[in-house]
Amino acid sequence: MAHDKASVRKVLDKAKAEGRTALTAPEGKLVCDAYGISVPQEGLAGSAADAAKLAQGMGFPVVMKIVSPDILHKTEAGGVVVGVRSAAEAEKAYDAIVANARKYKGDARIAGVQVQQMLLGGQEVIVGAVTDQSFGKLVAFGMGGVLVEVLKDITFRLAPTGKEEALSMLDSIKAGEILKGVRGAEAVSREALAGLIRSVSELVSDFPEIAEMDLNPVFATKSGATAADVRIVMDWNPPLQRYRPSQDEIVRQMNRIMRPDAVAVIGASSEDGKIGNSVMKNLINGGYAGKIYPIHPKSPEIMGRKAYKSVKEVPGEIDVAVFAIPAKFVAQALVECGEKQIPGAVLIPSGFAETGNVEGQKEIQEIGRKYNIRLMGPNIYGYYYTPKNLCATFCTPYDYKGKAALSSQSGGIGMAIIGFSRSAKMGVSAIVGLGNKSDLDEDDLLTFFEQDDNTEVIAMHCEDLKDGRSFAEVAKRVSRKKPVIVLKAGRTALGARAASSHTGALAGNDKIYDDVLRQSGVIRAPGLRDMLDYARALQKLPTPKGENVVIITGAGGSGVLLSDACVDNGLSLMRMPPDLDQAFRKFIPPFGAAGNPVDITGGEPPTTYKNTIKLGLEDERIHALVLGYWHTIITPPMVFARLVVEVVEEMKAKGITKPIVASLAGDVQVEEAAEHLYDHGIPAYAYSTEIPVAVLGAKYKWARGAGLVR
Amino acid sequence: MAHDKASVRKVLDKAKAEGRTALTAPEGKLVCDAYGISVPQEGLAGSAADAAKLAQGMGFPVVMKIVSPDILHKTEAGGVVVGVRSAAEAEKAYDAIVANARKYKGDARIAGVQVQQMLLGGQEVIVGAVTDQSFGKLVAFGMGGVLVEVLKDITFRLAPTGKEEALSMLDSIKAGEILKGVRGAEAVSREALAGLIRSVSELVSDFPEIAEMDLNPVFATKSGATAADVRIVMDWNPPLQRYRPSQDEIVRQMNRIMRPDAVAVIGASSEDGKIGNSVMKNLINGGYAGKIYPIHPKSPEIMGRKAYKSVKEVPGEIDVAVFAIPAKFVAQALVECGEKQIPGAVLIPSGFAETGNVEGQKEIQEIGRKYNIRLMGPNIYGYYYTPKNLCATFCTPYDYKGKAALSSQSGGIGMAIIGFSRSAKMGVSAIVGLGNKSDLDEDDLLTFFEQDDNTEVIAMHCEDLKDGRSFAEVAKRVSRKKPVIVLKAGRTALGARAASSHTGALAGNDKIYDDVLRQSGVIRAPGLRDMLDYARALQKLPTPKGENVVIITGAGGSGVLLSDACVDNGLSLMRMPPDLDQAFRKFIPPFGAAGNPVDITGGEPPTTYKNTIKLGLEDERIHALVLGYWHTIITPPMVFARLVVEVVEEMKAKGITKPIVASLAGDVQVEEAAEHLYDHGIPAYAYSTEIPVAVLGAKYKWARGAGLVR
Repeated sequence: MAHDKASVRKVLDKAKAEGRTALTAPEGKLVCDAYGISVPQEGLAGSAADAAKLAQGMGFPVVMKIVSPDILHKTEAGGVVVGVRSAAEAEKAYDAIVANARKYKGDARIAGVQVQQMLLGGQEVIVGAVTDQSFGKLVAFGMGGVLVEVLKDITFRLAPTGKEEALSMLDSIKAGEILKGVRGAEAVSREALAGLIRSVSELVSDFPEIAEMDLNPVFATKSGATAADVRIVMDWNPPLQRYRPSQDEIVRQMNRIMRPDAVAVIGASSEDGKIGNSVMKNLINGGYAGKIYPIHPKSPEIMGRKAYKSVKEVPGEIDVAVFAIPAKFVAQALVECGEKQIPGAVLIPSGFAETGNVEGQKEIQEIGRKYNIRLMGPNIYGYYYTPKNLCATFCTPYDYKGKAALSSQSGGIGMAIIGFSRSAKMGVSAIVGLGNKSDLDEDDLLTFFEQDDNTEVIAMHCEDLKDGRSFAEVAKRVSRKKPVIVLKAGRTALGARAASSHTGALAGNDKIYDDVLRQSGVIRAPGLRDMLDYARALQKLPTPKGENVVIITGAGGSGVLLSDACVDNGLSLMRMPPDLDQAFRKFIPPFGAAGNPVDITGGEPPTTYKNTIKLGLEDERIHALVLGYWHTIITPPMVFARLVVEVVEEMKAKGITKPIVASLAGDVQVEEAAEHLYDHGIPAYAYSTEIPVAVLGAKYKWARGAGLVR
Repeated sequence: MAHDKASVRKVLDKAKAEGRTALTAPEGKLVCDAYGISVPQEGLAGSAADAAKLAQGMGFPVVMKIVSPDILHKTEAGGVVVGVRSAAEAEKAYDAIVANARKYKGDARIAGVQVQQMLLGGQEVIVGAVTDQSFGKLVAFGMGGVLVEVLKDITFRLAPTGKEEALSMLDSIKAGEILKGVRGAEAVSREALAGLIRSVSELVSDFPEIAEMDLNPVFATKSGATAADVRIVMDWNPPLQRYRPSQDEIVRQMNRIMRPDAVAVIGASSEDGKIGNSVMKNLINGGYAGKIYPIHPKSPEIMGRKAYKSVKEVPGEIDVAVFAIPAKFVAQALVECGEKQIPGAVLIPSGFAETGNVEGQKEIQEIGRKYNIRLMGPNIYGYYYTPKNLCATFCTPYDYKGKAALSSQSGGIGMAIIGFSRSAKMGVSAIVGLGNKSDLDEDDLLTFFEQDDNTEVIAMHCEDLKDGRSFAEVAKRVSRKKPVIVLKAGRTALGARAASSHTGALAGNDKIYDDVLRQSGVIRAPGLRDMLDYARALQKLPTPKGENVVIITGAGGSGVLLSDACVDNGLSLMRMPPDLDQAFRKFIPPFGAAGNPVDITGGEPPTTYKNTIKLGLEDERIHALVLGYWHTIITPPMVFARLVVEVVEEMKAKGITKPIVASLAGDVQVEEAAEHLYDHGIPAYAYSTEIPVAVLGAKYKWARGAGLVR
């Protein structure tokens, strides 16, 4: 759409010159006109004939109002007529209005009579725009009237929006079905509504000084969408754009930081209990094979390694410097890192913004910018990168290698990640603490993990996004290649309050996060344990090739709960084709239920599980399996676990891989069986019918977002 | 309200005599009038003066319509005038209508002009009634128009409803706020709406043959509620009432079954692998101290105990007979049990309704009724009652005694209960399999557990309720004393389909279950693991004395997630009074955040945890604590766990008990710490910020329902 930017500029310049932060209604109309946003037509009639002509041009009915600088109370003066329905009525109304005005105030100067299109019927909706401190410009759409007010039925997108995205907003609200026409009402024009949304999104993007905009109500009909009321609020000092290096630059620096060949430990120590000692131990005992340079003002040697007074004395190149010194010494050491051209600094020390030392944090940020050092932290536990056996933390080495990369904004949550991973033997490529995020944040990590062949799933705990817009852009790209899971803390009003007391960062409106993350293809984890379960399972599950999920269960009761969980997680239980139903029936007792779930019944031998699972894998129409196991003497847990692994590997040899998850109901022996299955790539859970389906659901959500299914 | 039942009876009798299952509109109006349900007033005017008088009596505006058997198309005949606003207009309208009619058809017989009250504005709502096969008569209330259609915004209650319950319906719908008046609209009369709901609920209860009723729309205004349209559907063959023993009779029989002094094992066997052998072993090895009578057609002795050919040969009294024989032999053995006057039969065998043998199941039901034997099952694993060391199952004994009683409809889920309980060391009083529920069901168990001093929490997995109404009645009473947790499987449409293929029982509409269970004070578990977690934790948590929850955390990140979880679970984070805030601040570093969460920060020694937790317990304004622990070298996991237990026990000695839950973030050592805490009555969880808050939330939900808080 070609927009008349010059007209808008003129309106805004005038308002700015007059020191106003709100536009007047006529100004709002001009702005809308310039961007093709339909508003009620209006015109000024100088005669009865004029009025009739104007009205005919815009279509009936119309509203007519006296225009006079001397008449403030138009209705009182008999200067308003609503519902004018014909040219004749318009002429009559004109005369009546002027006559009334003269009677009301003999000497009133009369400029004429305003004729305005009257909006009738249609569906009331709201279109608006806001400026979020993390995401920038956002366009909003909701149902009008009580629905948006009582049910908060509204949805957001980053502005500007494309056509598809604008259309998607119409389906993203709870009451979206209303727009399709219910109870005999006509469907509204989706094209027109989406067009209006796009125009608003382009307007606020083109003019960042438009802080807020409300079109409320907009009347949507089968042929158009017209904004009955326009409200535009200005902010003449929009925030400056944040500095962002190019994606290539980020990759270059992050590769040196995350996969270093040489690490300096600033504040390395031989003394037990010191952080600088823990870091040294973890690097050495973790098996890191690169160069380690202890930095210490006095010691000539630390833990058998030659120590240096400063990074500047180190003969070779250094990729990353890990800081284990008090906050007050950080700035000076950081300058030295800059002079040594070290690309990354890992700032473990606390005592910056989180304790109120905002200035101190600003100082190191400026040093980082000046010398082009990327800063991780401060106020973090450090980071792990297992392919390099790198444990640059004060925790303990983690050596169960795998494909999940995790990060946390909080140290406590980082420790929970480490503990869970170790306990559940989760394969991990990296664990990174981001802490105060003075520089490096989630989008830098995403950019690195995107091209890191050792990472296949990315899971991030965050309380805020310093630059939600960058994150959304990067996540949209990365999530098409690898699942990105986000645990957004501070989701709720109360939670958000706590977030701000913790990090000093204002947590964003959760609805905005929710909409933008979804649009970016991010899988949002509802809780900490979910994030961990997803990260653990998603690296194991192959990508499904279609939507047909089949449950095969020995316990009918599990089958019902697994079905519930499938619905809860947006999975489609395949409608079983008759021939496939017959094929399953061959293997199960006559009173077992084929259909879906395939209920093989509880007393069956291993062969029944084996045959049905094999069939489920072999038939191309089935895309994923959910197994429900019931502990019996006839098929004990480990027998079940081994037979499943056997079938899966037999099929894999034939080139067949499908996501399979398992729910194990039984006595404690099922825990060992679940572990065996997990070790062989099949996410399996004892005593739960929800978790296996939830992780499969997460994989599907990702695959759909990435365009890999449907 | 006094209702005119005779009038209704007359209307219904006429419809029945005419073989109709739907009432006509005038009949519907008569029925409504008889129960004080307001419908638009109407009357037949024979003259213009008459019309004016009638209209004045009902209030303006009115609609006036010609009444003539010869004029079918009233509007076409000019026989309808809407919006008549005064007596004069009514007179004019009368004359015009009659004149038009005569002009339209000269010889038309004119009975007069109908004058009908015209309903204006107000809020459109729906009131209705349905008959559910499990719950019987239910009254429904929802918002009218698109809200009920698109958002399915409707709520149900068992009919008849009391006043409070009817009023509660107005707040149980999502858009309930609309009724309070939004956007300048007036609030509707809650009294009038609730009154109408009650009248409908009483009507359908008084006349069970009314199968369905719809008042749609009802116009609710600030002064009244009037049904604009009435639809009543009849079912002249309402289902018979189910046989229910009295509560006393249930208690008497259940006490003998669940706490027997003598058990017969029908089909006892010495042969390994047989169910009758497993049951014998479990009784003996489980440590059951009562009498055990093996019943076997040939063996004189089984496992060192004298065996009998039939229960009838056993010299002493028998409380319960456990069946471990094939289905086909059950009926005969059951008759013998009846002759021996055994009050309970535990029917482990499968091969009844679940395999299509509906007749076989009916036969044993009839024998049970004839001899007054209560039947558990068939198609079950049996049952445990740990206070008696009783394991009447083919599984393995369970000996970790505690206060949770659990039941499952499905054997698979029963095995998961046993496995989880053993693994998590959940204290259990009973685990019961209900299987096909040919007789004993959840309400019998509830009645028993209510008076069982060994049980404090009841958790039930069910796929359907054979008699939802009885269950609701009993649960309402029992849940005021002990938490009742229900995992209702087949919640979703797909799930419900699976349920019906499993048990042949039609799973009820989930919304009905949800509403009725909530009204009965039942805590509904969203999934299997939740049910198990609730059962495990609720027996440990003391009942809170008020709503003020305080989070004390070492990890700020956990604090944010715990806050989110509090909101998700309906908990109120206490707004910290200034003096209490100051008191907390004394113990924490200056940069720590008091307020709520109390963020003591991560590097603190044990004393900081200790002092703040102690203060949280001592201050009377705080009613529950949520602890967030962060694993550090300064306060290692077990040090934390021990200090918490110490403080809690110190306070308990002073008579202070409050519910406390803990979330532990750290390396694998936190698992041992969580176990230590749990063992000492503090539900604690590693790597989860959601589960601890969810179980506290469940306790609160129960306490509120039971009227113990607020």
